[in-house]
Amino acid sequence: MPKLDLTQIPWRTGSIYPAGKLADAVAGRASQRLGDAGGLTQYGVNLVRLEPGAQSSLRHYHMQQDEFAMVTEGVLTLIENDGETEMRPGDCATFKAGEANGHHFVNRTDVPASFLVVGTRTETETAYYSDIDVMVKIGAEGANFTRKDGSPLTADQIGDET
Amino acid sequence: MPKLDLTQIPWRTGSIYPAGKLADAVAGRASQRLGDAGGLTQYGVNLVRLEPGAQSSLRHYHMQQDEFAMVTEGVLTLIENDGETEMRPGDCATFKAGEANGHHFVNRTDVPASFLVVGTRTETETAYYSDIDVMVKIGAEGANFTRKDGSPLTADQIGDET
Repeated sequence: MPKLDLTQIPWRTGSIYPAGKLADAVAGRASQRLGDAGGLTQYGVNLVRLEPGAQSSLRHYHMQQDEFAMVTEGVLTLIENDGETEMRPGDCATFKAGEANGHHFVNRTDVPASFLVVGTRTETETAYYSDIDVMVKIGAEGANFTRKDGSPLTADQIGDET
Repeated sequence: MPKLDLTQIPWRTGSIYPAGKLADAVAGRASQRLGDAGGLTQYGVNLVRLEPGAQSSLRHYHMQQDEFAMVTEGVLTLIENDGETEMRPGDCATFKAGEANGHHFVNRTDVPASFLVVGTRTETETAYYSDIDVMVKIGAEGANFTRKDGSPLTADQIGDET
């Protein structure tokens, strides 16, 4: 049956970010892996739901993977290099691989908001975080978060501030 | 600006089908190439609008390209090997590359209906049409429609019936 039963696809929370401040930054985010549920392998398609105050990710851009997003519910604020843009259901945005324009969505309303996001699957990937000195390389061994010069993240980058 | 201005993206009609009965089968279909408008190259993302009575394509499946669809407006009927399924805004379907399950959407209502569709871009592609003796090979030279044994389409397949 090609039609997906969305009620049977688990909502995932958490992230690949190192535990601590980075992982805490995406509290209130949950997503369903729609493409995976349907057996697709060439790109990921996720439905991402943000609770009030939550953000989709730390602001970042991908080097190899094209991204496409469409808001499906509520109102989201897209934040990227050129500023902020309010987006409503049906509004779409594209993030071409390799363009150094870090982006993320933030839910500044008091009700949940959701978007559909598509991203190419590649064997390896590098992404850069725009507002912090962090990059990630993803490969067969998983995700390796470092500073942009390749050195390890420091305690103040991953720990809490107490 | 990553947000797309949908009012500026042209609506395309017509198809790659040979003129005649095959092309006439998708009258009432129009689409916006959202991914192309945003410079994406790794997959296509189109918003397809079907007038009452129109269909998205002749029922077919792809050999190399994963497909994903989400209904965004109105009510559409998904027709595939296992029968018919009504789909409403937010409903999603996946069509994994190489699975011999021909599919298309038909608008059986009296108001327009739309869906978002994603398909991988590959240098070559082969698709088979489930209800007719037609296949297509797509490559650098364009689309070549033939019978499934590779022989040319016959006049009765492409002409009108008068």
